[in-house]
Amino acid sequence: MLKPLGDRIVVKAVEAETTTAGGILLPDTAKEKPQTAEVLAVGPGKTLDNGTVVALEIAVGDKVVYGKYSGTEIKVDGQELIILRQDDVLGIVEG
Amino acid sequence: MLKPLGDRIVVKAVEAETTTAGGILLPDTAKEKPQTAEVLAVGPGKTLDNGTVVALEIAVGDKVVYGKYSGTEIKVDGQELIILRQDDVLGIVEG
Amino acid sequence: MLKPLGDRIVVKAVEAETTTAGGILLPDTAKEKPQTAEVLAVGPGKTLDNGTVVALEIAVGDKVVYGKYSGTEIKVDGQELIILRQDDVLGIVEG
Amino acid sequence: MLKPLGDRIVVKAVEAETTTAGGILLPDTAKEKPQTAEVLAVGPGKTLDNGTVVALEIAVGDKVVYGKYSGTEIKVDGQELIILRQDDVLGIVEG
Amino acid sequence: MLKPLGDRIVVKAVEAETTTAGGILLPDTAKEKPQTAEVLAVGPGKTLDNGTVVALEIAVGDKVVYGKYSGTEIKVDGQELIILRQDDVLGIVEG
Amino acid sequence: MLKPLGDRIVVKAVEAETTTAGGILLPDTAKEKPQTAEVLAVGPGKTLDNGTVVALEIAVGDKVVYGKYSGTEIKVDGQELIILRQDDVLGIVEG
Amino acid sequence: MLKPLGDRIVVKAVEAETTTAGGILLPDTAKEKPQTAEVLAVGPGKTLDNGTVVALEIAVGDKVVYGKYSGTEIKVDGQELIILRQDDVLGIVEG
Repeated sequence: MLKPLGDRIVVKAVEAETTTAGGILLPDTAKEKPQTAEVLAVGPGKTLDNGTVVALEIAVGDKVVYGKYSGTEIKVDGQELIILRQDDVLGIVEG
Repeated sequence: MLKPLGDRIVVKAVEAETTTAGGILLPDTAKEKPQTAEVLAVGPGKTLDNGTVVALEIAVGDKVVYGKYSGTEIKVDGQELIILRQDDVLGIVEG
Repeated sequence: MLKPLGDRIVVKAVEAETTTAGGILLPDTAKEKPQTAEVLAVGPGKTLDNGTVVALEIAVGDKVVYGKYSGTEIKVDGQELIILRQDDVLGIVEG
Repeated sequence: MLKPLGDRIVVKAVEAETTTAGGILLPDTAKEKPQTAEVLAVGPGKTLDNGTVVALEIAVGDKVVYGKYSGTEIKVDGQELIILRQDDVLGIVEG
Repeated sequence: MLKPLGDRIVVKAVEAETTTAGGILLPDTAKEKPQTAEVLAVGPGKTLDNGTVVALEIAVGDKVVYGKYSGTEIKVDGQELIILRQDDVLGIVEG
Repeated sequence: MLKPLGDRIVVKAVEAETTTAGGILLPDTAKEKPQTAEVLAVGPGKTLDNGTVVALEIAVGDKVVYGKYSGTEIKVDGQELIILRQDDVLGIVEG
Repeated sequence: MLKPLGDRIVVKAVEAETTTAGGILLPDTAKEKPQTAEVLAVGPGKTLDNGTVVALEIAVGDKVVYGKYSGTEIKVDGQELIILRQDDVLGIVEG
């Protein structure tokens, strides 16, 4: 498994393009397309200028939406994963 | 529903182009066109360098004006939403 | 009416190009042309890195000068308004 | 009259190009040419990140040298003025 | 041996391109390819704006993943090493 | 005379190109050429984010080396001077 | 001799290109080539935003590795020297 550092998270993309109403549907525009993913691991948090470490707002198991061109892809043990910074995450899908 | 992180908000664009006097009318210039939207969800706030979280000045239900090219579009449960940072919001429509 | 956020202000441009001596006359150079406007609303202030909110130096009713290409134009209730940041304001016209 | 905000000052350019020895003579190079001006008004000071306002090092009546392409020109009551930030000022002419 | 300064680490690349399932397999896309490496030395830590030195999250012996175009290559005593900043490290491989 | 502001200094270039061993000899490469100058005046110091003014490390009379393309040239009372920021100074020539 | 300011150091390049195993061998790639040098003088340290001066991690006599295109070359008393910032130094060669 891959342990992210700082304010990074490890996610696995969810096949969202073909979901029906009730799921997430990505619009087909010239804008950056958001992508949905499940969070597999989260870093210890962001270190502020005063040395405090602020825990992430994201937890393992969350479904997150992020910009399609954010992050770095990596294949670990046959799984295609993406490493994101918390700031790349636009929101958490609930309910 | 989509829960925004940090100083982000989730809004739904209001069809403002055809409103009459008393509503918002977007000018047709070469400048960035402001857009009106209703706020559906707000993040927990912005984390300052000293670790303090400052709550947003924007509340759910507010009508906000923002630059047309700000934010990221996303379709959730059939609804076209926009994710903005508080700093992308130019003002709140009152009255 | 439009309530500005943070260190933003809402102004209404004053027709200054044709004023006589005693008023403001904009020079016709290649430089950014300053514009005069009346302040209609001011935001709550700028939040510093330590969380303090510093009230604006500008008050409702002030006549301010700002760079012509600063800010965002918006039409509210038939009025053409401009949203500026305090930092876009070059000075306050007095007397 | 024009009241500058923050760390800005209002100056009036001095015709320095034709001064003799003892005055300021601007070199004719490809570099940015410094300009001499008299200070007519100064802002309240610069607000630091911790909220402190630091008074300007420049006083009304000072003769300052600044980069020719710094600042914004404006005509007030028939006078051609320039609005500068303190940081645009290279030095104060003494003696 | 090479002692890194500040928040830098010295690593030795692991031949990862041919590993089987259970190891790291680098995807072949247009994106920046992550690379796996073993950590040989770590700097004393990052000095924050308040003077505190924050120890690195990475230890000697860790297997780290980093962007292929990060860091600086150097040959020391016949060994090809790479000098990275902690921020170039995407994650630590575990288990 | 010219009084510099903040962390600026006023220097007078030394004709260094023709000095012999024991003096400073500027290399003739594609890199930015350092220049030697004598310090005529120094500013009160640099104001930090917390309001403290830090006195300059440079004193009147020092011989300093700086990048040839740093600073702003100005002619005062017939003297060709250069206004530099302390950060433009690479070192002080001693002995 | 040349006294560096702030977080700068003065170094003298070591002829490293022809060293054998046990020494430093610079790779011949498209990447920035590191260079080895001996430290002749170090500045008093870096001044943080809170006014504290942090002494350098580098001492006179250290052998340091730095990016070939970092720093500024200068000839003092016939010696070709390089002025670097501590941050340009990739590591210290030990043993």
